[in-house]
Amino acid sequence: MTAPSFAKIRNPKRKVDDRAVAHAILDQGLVAHVGFVIDGRPMVMPMAYARDGERLYIHGASKTRIVAKTGGLPLCLTVTHLDGIVCARSGFNHSVNYRSCVVHGTGRWVEPGAEFDRALWLITDHLLPGRNAEVREATAQEMKATGVLAVDVDAVTVKVRTGGPVDEPEDHALDIWSGVLPVTMAIGRGVPDGHTAPTRAEPPSLSAARRKFSL
Amino acid sequence: MTAPSFAKIRNPKRKVDDRAVAHAILDQGLVAHVGFVIDGRPMVMPMAYARDGERLYIHGASKTRIVAKTGGLPLCLTVTHLDGIVCARSGFNHSVNYRSCVVHGTGRWVEPGAEFDRALWLITDHLLPGRNAEVREATAQEMKATGVLAVDVDAVTVKVRTGGPVDEPEDHALDIWSGVLPVTMAIGRGVPDGHTAPTRAEPPSLSAARRKFSL
Repeated sequence: MTAPSFAKIRNPKRKVDDRAVAHAILDQGLVAHVGFVIDGRPMVMPMAYARDGERLYIHGASKTRIVAKTGGLPLCLTVTHLDGIVCARSGFNHSVNYRSCVVHGTGRWVEPGAEFDRALWLITDHLLPGRNAEVREATAQEMKATGVLAVDVDAVTVKVRTGGPVDEPEDHALDIWSGVLPVTMAIGRGVPDGHTAPTRAEPPSLSAARRKFSL
Repeated sequence: MTAPSFAKIRNPKRKVDDRAVAHAILDQGLVAHVGFVIDGRPMVMPMAYARDGERLYIHGASKTRIVAKTGGLPLCLTVTHLDGIVCARSGFNHSVNYRSCVVHGTGRWVEPGAEFDRALWLITDHLLPGRNAEVREATAQEMKATGVLAVDVDAVTVKVRTGGPVDEPEDHALDIWSGVLPVTMAIGRGVPDGHTAPTRAEPPSLSAARRKFSL
């Protein structure tokens, strides 16, 4: 896979022809919905992920179906940010404001080694920037229990809707409240576990996550 | 499809054998990630939806691929609520708190008529409870431009993770902050469009949506 893959944008109605937008959507997402085909049926699972340039990584227990069985198979990873419910004067013109990135690619099992280590580092860093420096190192046993799948990207679709309702002009005079109900993801203060001193300050990775994921 | 379909729970690690939990996850979701197979490849799209008892509905422009082409085909609808990032003392024991519901079913094109009308009513009401009573009625042309797909449910998987990190006992003594970084969806105050008086009070459907989707 080479860099231009993120420019292979498909033809949706709300397409945004900008690789930077795709990267931003992926980088601000916490969960990807990963689709694969098993026994001819679609399966969609929520998964953590990371982006490394023009490549994505997912991981899981070595033996889980999606990690162990989808090497070489087509995958679809979709990341969606919902930004608002768009309230119009007719049911038909209701909509939602959102940013979504649909990545079509092929799974590739990553063998233990430098790419494997980097992928795990990136997945943790994606959720909690800087966290890798705050925790103990992984053991050989933990590494063995983990499977990593690279997603070599074939095509990307970005869709973005922003702004208020688009009503029929003749509907504007109707006595109906219309506009946007804003929706966002909110991240609170860290809640320490029972083995952490309650007065202890949050580590930098938590505030970094709040900065990264708060829009 | 009959009521017991929501009880056909699969065998995931974090399974929750409770139909009420599945219903609650679906009812509190704003977007489903809908998977289908096209030309042998998986496709995952974010879509609005509604639940009617033990059945789901999605809709779209009549001619869009997922609405027009997936009648009779297997579908997978996944709704995920992310509740927190679980910070452990090792990268390996990091996790996320979430509630997800994966619905496997078969698409069924809904012809115009009572079920069609009810499905559209439900999809609007799912996003904005009570909104149907606040807007003008749909025109015949609008109805014609809309396609509705029922999802007759074959199997449902519910997974829920709650609580703090599960560290190795020997890691508890490490000088590392561990706990949970809470994540939630937040809904703001409605922003009126340019044809709505700025001083006009929000309609009841907006506060109903805030009550429904705020946890």
